Amino acid sequence: MNNYNNTMRRLGRQTFDFPGCPVITSTGSVVGEKEGKGPLANYFDLILEEDMFGEKTWEKAESKMLKEAMLLAAKKSGKKPEDIDVMLCGDLLNQLMSCSFTARDLQIPFLGLYGACSAMCESLLIASTLIDGGYANSALAAASSHYCTAERQFRMPLEHGNQRPPAAQWTVTAAGAAIVQKNEAKEKTGPQVCIRRATMGRVMDAGITDTHQMGAAMAPAAVDTLCTHFQDTGTKPDDYDAILTGDMGFIGKQIVIDLMRKKGYDITPVYDDCGVLMYFKEKQDVHSGGSGCGCSASVFCGKIFRDMMNGKLKKVILMSTGALMTTQSSQQGESIPGIAHAVSMEVM
Amino acid sequence: MNNYNNTMRRLGRQTFDFPGCPVITSTGSVVGEKEGKGPLANYFDLILEEDMFGEKTWEKAESKMLKEAMLLAAKKSGKKPEDIDVMLCGDLLNQLMSCSFTARDLQIPFLGLYGACSAMCESLLIASTLIDGGYANSALAAASSHYCTAERQFRMPLEHGNQRPPAAQWTVTAAGAAIVQKNEAKEKTGPQVCIRRATMGRVMDAGITDTHQMGAAMAPAAVDTLCTHFQDTGTKPDDYDAILTGDMGFIGKQIVIDLMRKKGYDITPVYDDCGVLMYFKEKQDVHSGGSGCGCSASVFCGKIFRDMMNGKLKKVILMSTGALMTTQSSQQGESIPGIAHAVSMEVM
Repeated sequence: MNNYNNTMRRLGRQTFDFPGCPVITSTGSVVGEKEGKGPLANYFDLILEEDMFGEKTWEKAESKMLKEAMLLAAKKSGKKPEDIDVMLCGDLLNQLMSCSFTARDLQIPFLGLYGACSAMCESLLIASTLIDGGYANSALAAASSHYCTAERQFRMPLEHGNQRPPAAQWTVTAAGAAIVQKNEAKEKTGPQVCIRRATMGRVMDAGITDTHQMGAAMAPAAVDTLCTHFQDTGTKPDDYDAILTGDMGFIGKQIVIDLMRKKGYDITPVYDDCGVLMYFKEKQDVHSGGSGCGCSASVFCGKIFRDMMNGKLKKVILMSTGALMTTQSSQQGESIPGIAHAVSMEVM
Repeated sequence: MNNYNNTMRRLGRQTFDFPGCPVITSTGSVVGEKEGKGPLANYFDLILEEDMFGEKTWEKAESKMLKEAMLLAAKKSGKKPEDIDVMLCGDLLNQLMSCSFTARDLQIPFLGLYGACSAMCESLLIASTLIDGGYANSALAAASSHYCTAERQFRMPLEHGNQRPPAAQWTVTAAGAAIVQKNEAKEKTGPQVCIRRATMGRVMDAGITDTHQMGAAMAPAAVDTLCTHFQDTGTKPDDYDAILTGDMGFIGKQIVIDLMRKKGYDITPVYDDCGVLMYFKEKQDVHSGGSGCGCSASVFCGKIFRDMMNGKLKKVILMSTGALMTTQSSQQGESIPGIAHAVSMEVM
């Protein structure tokens, strides 16, 4: 019993260290029509011509998008679904409809995760423990969201054409998937994006009840996780080339900057938000920016991973942020609980 | 890099071995009024006098039940929430409403899981990898369901009083929580329930579209995971004192027995189902038995764990089974995908 060395893997209550440095060997990203007209268009593998993606329902389109992102990621690593040990993924739909049906089609052992828009980092975090802990040799970490499935589930039927307040964010139609593998140093032939550390989030609730103020609702969780990550790893903002939150949007991004400053950290030189990066703010009429599980998933799997492989970024923290409310909790007078999980990566 | 020994942790694509033998140090179980009149009544820690549990909504009652089960489990291990490194849990509600709000109240780092009624084993499985892999010292693995929250979300408003067909199962009002800890052999003072191995499930779909035939829908997944567990671990049914499925119910249990026989395994001497054990079939009018995340969670945390600690059972496989459909997938003509995760435990 206990005949193994695991003393190096725990940097604090919430923070894991991965001494084996699991590698993200490839990623896949699929985005909708609107996202394909945004500033990151050139970074995505596939841009849909129309958001139904040839399916009869939006939900089936989202599932197909997720599956395509996974198959793209797998193909780039020379893998078929049967070569992958485990699929970890999350989406926003009730009962994880997109992930569940994708898992049925691909027949990869499946661990379904729900963390709202924090799904991409929750899946990367658990994938890293499974790979680094020696439980799996390869994992798929993924997440998806679709504007039309999210709007009708969480807000109003699209046909209403109801107005959105300025603080509202636009649920991104996108999916991102990453293949995480055991680091076989001997096979290394070029730069590798390695996962070094991860911090699990606690649920923080600022008492906000307005579901059009997601950035404000999630900011305390983002700040809590990021400060914990810095403290547990003994690092500071300028140790990183980029720190990215999932989908704080324009308003939430500013709140995160302000709250981090109060905690003694100036993150402005390296900080940005995937929901801010996704769209042209004025031209695309997205108010406070993008949101949704697919936001940080596709921005990471599309842009950030490429920037790391191309030498533009070396050390990066990706921190997906989730708002854990339901329509029913809001109807029952509850405020919006937020969560954020952080993963730090390094080109090695 | 790779300066650790992990070669012993992988018994196959789907099956993990836990050489450090993480220990379930305590459990907590809370059940509703009806469950408290069933054959297992004496095994539960707390039986509600009424299923609203003093709250204003069923959803809040479910959340409170889950929290109570967790606090009971923690207390028996001499722990406060702040002593626990991570909380892994799942429920049936949209966006994991019960778990999310419990995680907010307890302030334990939270990884939300969705696997429908397979939640208890999904959480025990991931908890075991985190403990055995050295990422956490203590974890809470838990799941809950509530008849009234599930009925109104998945089926009909209770006020309809609509009839249930004979194959229908009764969603259990219950929560179960287990504390999983690192095995500190030197501190051992008596029998310990250790987690030895676990098998992740694949999604299997038998093409069943009738949501009142959950047992039939989940049986192929249960059989797939159980056969894989036997093959990967080199064990057979009579190596165990008990094999328990989550919530196949009376009909599903018989299908599992038949399908396992076709695969060459006679499991009848040791096999039972938590949904079958929970109620008096005729007297309590539950048709095909119990279901819901809370079913295997409370039966394990209530009865099975006690039977193991009391020397009645030594080697046990718990396999929670989940049906991954949504109301929307059913409306869109999809069949019901099933999944099952298995955890094998041993008194050491």
